[in-house]
Amino acid sequence: MFESAELGHSISKDIWKKEVPELRENLLDAQLDLLQTKKFPVVILVAGVDCAGKGETVNILNEWMDPRHIETHALRDLTDEELERPQMYRYWRVLPPRGKIGIFIGTWYSAPLVENVYGTIKNAELDQRLERIIRFEKMLCDEGALVLKFWLHLSKDQQKKKLKGLEKDPSTRWRVTDKDWQNYKMYDTFRKVSERMLRSTSTAESPWIIVEGSDPRYRYLTIGKALHSALRQRLDAPAPPEHDEPIPPMTPSIDNLLLLNTLDLKRTIKKRDYEDQLEKLQGRLNLLTRHDQFRKLSVVVVFEGNDAAGKGGSIRRITQALDARQYRIIPVAAPTEEERAQPYLWRFWRNIPRKGRFAIFDRSWYGRVLVERVEGFCSRADWMRAYGEINDFEEQMVRNRTVVVKFWLAISQDEQLRRFKEREKIGFKRFKITEEDWRNRDKWPEYERAVCDMVDRTSTEIAPWTLVEANDKNYARIKVLKTLCERIESALGK
Amino acid sequence: MFESAELGHSISKDIWKKEVPELRENLLDAQLDLLQTKKFPVVILVAGVDCAGKGETVNILNEWMDPRHIETHALRDLTDEELERPQMYRYWRVLPPRGKIGIFIGTWYSAPLVENVYGTIKNAELDQRLERIIRFEKMLCDEGALVLKFWLHLSKDQQKKKLKGLEKDPSTRWRVTDKDWQNYKMYDTFRKVSERMLRSTSTAESPWIIVEGSDPRYRYLTIGKALHSALRQRLDAPAPPEHDEPIPPMTPSIDNLLLLNTLDLKRTIKKRDYEDQLEKLQGRLNLLTRHDQFRKLSVVVVFEGNDAAGKGGSIRRITQALDARQYRIIPVAAPTEEERAQPYLWRFWRNIPRKGRFAIFDRSWYGRVLVERVEGFCSRADWMRAYGEINDFEEQMVRNRTVVVKFWLAISQDEQLRRFKEREKIGFKRFKITEEDWRNRDKWPEYERAVCDMVDRTSTEIAPWTLVEANDKNYARIKVLKTLCERIESALGK
Repeated sequence: MFESAELGHSISKDIWKKEVPELRENLLDAQLDLLQTKKFPVVILVAGVDCAGKGETVNILNEWMDPRHIETHALRDLTDEELERPQMYRYWRVLPPRGKIGIFIGTWYSAPLVENVYGTIKNAELDQRLERIIRFEKMLCDEGALVLKFWLHLSKDQQKKKLKGLEKDPSTRWRVTDKDWQNYKMYDTFRKVSERMLRSTSTAESPWIIVEGSDPRYRYLTIGKALHSALRQRLDAPAPPEHDEPIPPMTPSIDNLLLLNTLDLKRTIKKRDYEDQLEKLQGRLNLLTRHDQFRKLSVVVVFEGNDAAGKGGSIRRITQALDARQYRIIPVAAPTEEERAQPYLWRFWRNIPRKGRFAIFDRSWYGRVLVERVEGFCSRADWMRAYGEINDFEEQMVRNRTVVVKFWLAISQDEQLRRFKEREKIGFKRFKITEEDWRNRDKWPEYERAVCDMVDRTSTEIAPWTLVEANDKNYARIKVLKTLCERIESALGK
Repeated sequence: MFESAELGHSISKDIWKKEVPELRENLLDAQLDLLQTKKFPVVILVAGVDCAGKGETVNILNEWMDPRHIETHALRDLTDEELERPQMYRYWRVLPPRGKIGIFIGTWYSAPLVENVYGTIKNAELDQRLERIIRFEKMLCDEGALVLKFWLHLSKDQQKKKLKGLEKDPSTRWRVTDKDWQNYKMYDTFRKVSERMLRSTSTAESPWIIVEGSDPRYRYLTIGKALHSALRQRLDAPAPPEHDEPIPPMTPSIDNLLLLNTLDLKRTIKKRDYEDQLEKLQGRLNLLTRHDQFRKLSVVVVFEGNDAAGKGGSIRRITQALDARQYRIIPVAAPTEEERAQPYLWRFWRNIPRKGRFAIFDRSWYGRVLVERVEGFCSRADWMRAYGEINDFEEQMVRNRTVVVKFWLAISQDEQLRRFKEREKIGFKRFKITEEDWRNRDKWPEYERAVCDMVDRTSTEIAPWTLVEANDKNYARIKVLKTLCERIESALGK
């Protein structure tokens, strides 16, 4: 795999002088087009062997292009705000928006590589982590990002020479640390693991580009040209067709036996029982949040449901049991301008809670496979891939000890009609029934279908859906609180 | 000052039952109006004596209103990301946008109060810090925020009773810590210092509202009603007139001797000297960033100047000397939707660098007193108060060991014309001259006047302006680099 990157590539001064001015013009040109059209974001990874010139390469890219629209991220130690959230949080929070270029040194590949070389993680876990990376990068590409991955390579001899050279020069001696020599001793292992890693993560959407690192002119020119050609190609590509890729249809329902229809919406609870249980459950929940292990967890609660199903009321029964200092409710409305310039899940990542806190989502990332699907706000390809992306997202939260609790509040069509009419009668503005509510109602079967698909595809063992029979509001509130308590108890090992 | 809050206020169950439903309706109503009109943000501070019921009060407010549009912030320990930035950063980053309510427990008053009571800071420093708080709150109010400050008070006996009561009950015992009893012993001092603090920070725009804390019903009802009446008043107020408050005119120039005119724009440097000095200065700057004390500093560089004065070129001469991993360039363009919903300086606060890093602003917060002033994009009152707000902002950065370096790149009208024409001739798109550039040029005298006012009012000892004669680009670049090196050296105590 590294053979071509050990041939001793080099570029003469003459060729360099001849080619660089034109390349710079071209790069600047492409960057300006990108900035003006805001067509897509560019994510550049610069990884590779120690001393292969990663830092210098990034400096050159900043010099050749307009550095005002490039953000370079050298993420090393995790900050405590990052430590309390899933591993990929630190990358999500600095993703470049459309039109901009983000360069990463110290990428999501560093940790798995080093940990495997030094034996902290076994091959099986390495593979697992690489698989997650592949899925993350695929999501970026599907969201329109141009992802370029450069691997700067040095042969063992070349690396030794570089290290010695840096050590000799008093002005660069500081750059060579014991760790570098330690890594050098592990060169063969690094090479073996890197090859395995590069092989398995070189995908059609974002292949690795391996570049021999010993000659700076060769390195810069190769990377500069690869970057320019990738930029130009994407910029000049005709607008993609309206996502008409053939996608297999969802299984049609041939017996009309839908999951939602199996719910017994008639379930009720007596007023006295309700009051009694409500008090007990709220007390139980409150106690749980004061459990001494609770500060090692976080809780994400998702509320979805039919219009007028009583999401707001259920949320209030939860927050009544909590201290206002430890929860945040995130009402999901139309994305802001900054959110629209980012991948779909970005606006949910930015709201992931710290340890010991609750984030309660009033509607959520499931909008993509519900309203956006039914109303055609996104393409079929977009919502189809969302199931997998959502599962990945929730898996990352769960791995970080987040309890993910998801509720679908279901009411019958008749009950909805009754509530709509009641609200119209009260006429109190905060319950205003809009045209849109009536329109959504007309699409009842489509929404029903979408909900069933959603549950089928995203109710996982680690983040299951709880379907809540909500014709009786009180019954629903009790079921919500009970489920929430049980899920937290189970996470606390109770 | 606390006399009225020690009278033993209480509200009977009957009155409570009668009044609460209406109050809740009214509060919800006002909150919905706020949300829909997005007229202003609401900042509520809940401060006061230990055990006076701050947490419970905030919980009640969340219960009475729609908690989805309230964010409660209990800021305790600083995170390491906050520790590396000015004190107020943690508050700026969570300010509520227009239409939302932000409730703060553990406010900007806590630290100065406690530190003074326990003798860490003397009265003089307390006063200084309170003065800064006053200025911060005034800025919030000027930016349109409704700022409500509640102080929950308990007499010494009442506090003792509360502490004992909490200790007796097994379910609340955990809430009473040694620290609480220690604070109780200092009750008299706390009372004295609190009074001083409340007195000096009770301003016309945001007065303190002192509430007796012992009876919950009294406390909740008082605060709920105060909140409702303040909300309603602001919501129903007619749109403010187009900021026609009488403001004294700036000193007219009667002898036409302007600061800018004293610059000798003819200054030049020979090409060979330029190359020689450039290399030396870039090397010097690079060495400075590797100084072992440098990681305790951060650097903010501001570039302002006439159109075509060469800001971009100067910035590149700086970044060439730096490692791409340690700087970020922030090109200042039109604010985003999220930024427009916040006070003017919010978008600059969010870009304050961490320790050991550079943030280079290509145009900056000075836009308010330059283009916005000249073009009438904001009212006279807005840009007039901006001078003071900017000085406060920069002072906070400097206090946090940020080196603030500000450059005005000045060229003559003739030189600008030459550059405009040259750019039109090259016709290369990234130098496109727009209609706007020509229009700005027509307003040369107004801009000149604005620049002089800006320098007069914001060139401070801690964050001075450097006026750069930029008709000769090379001369300008050398002056910029030299100034930057000197400023960092002086901060390093060299």
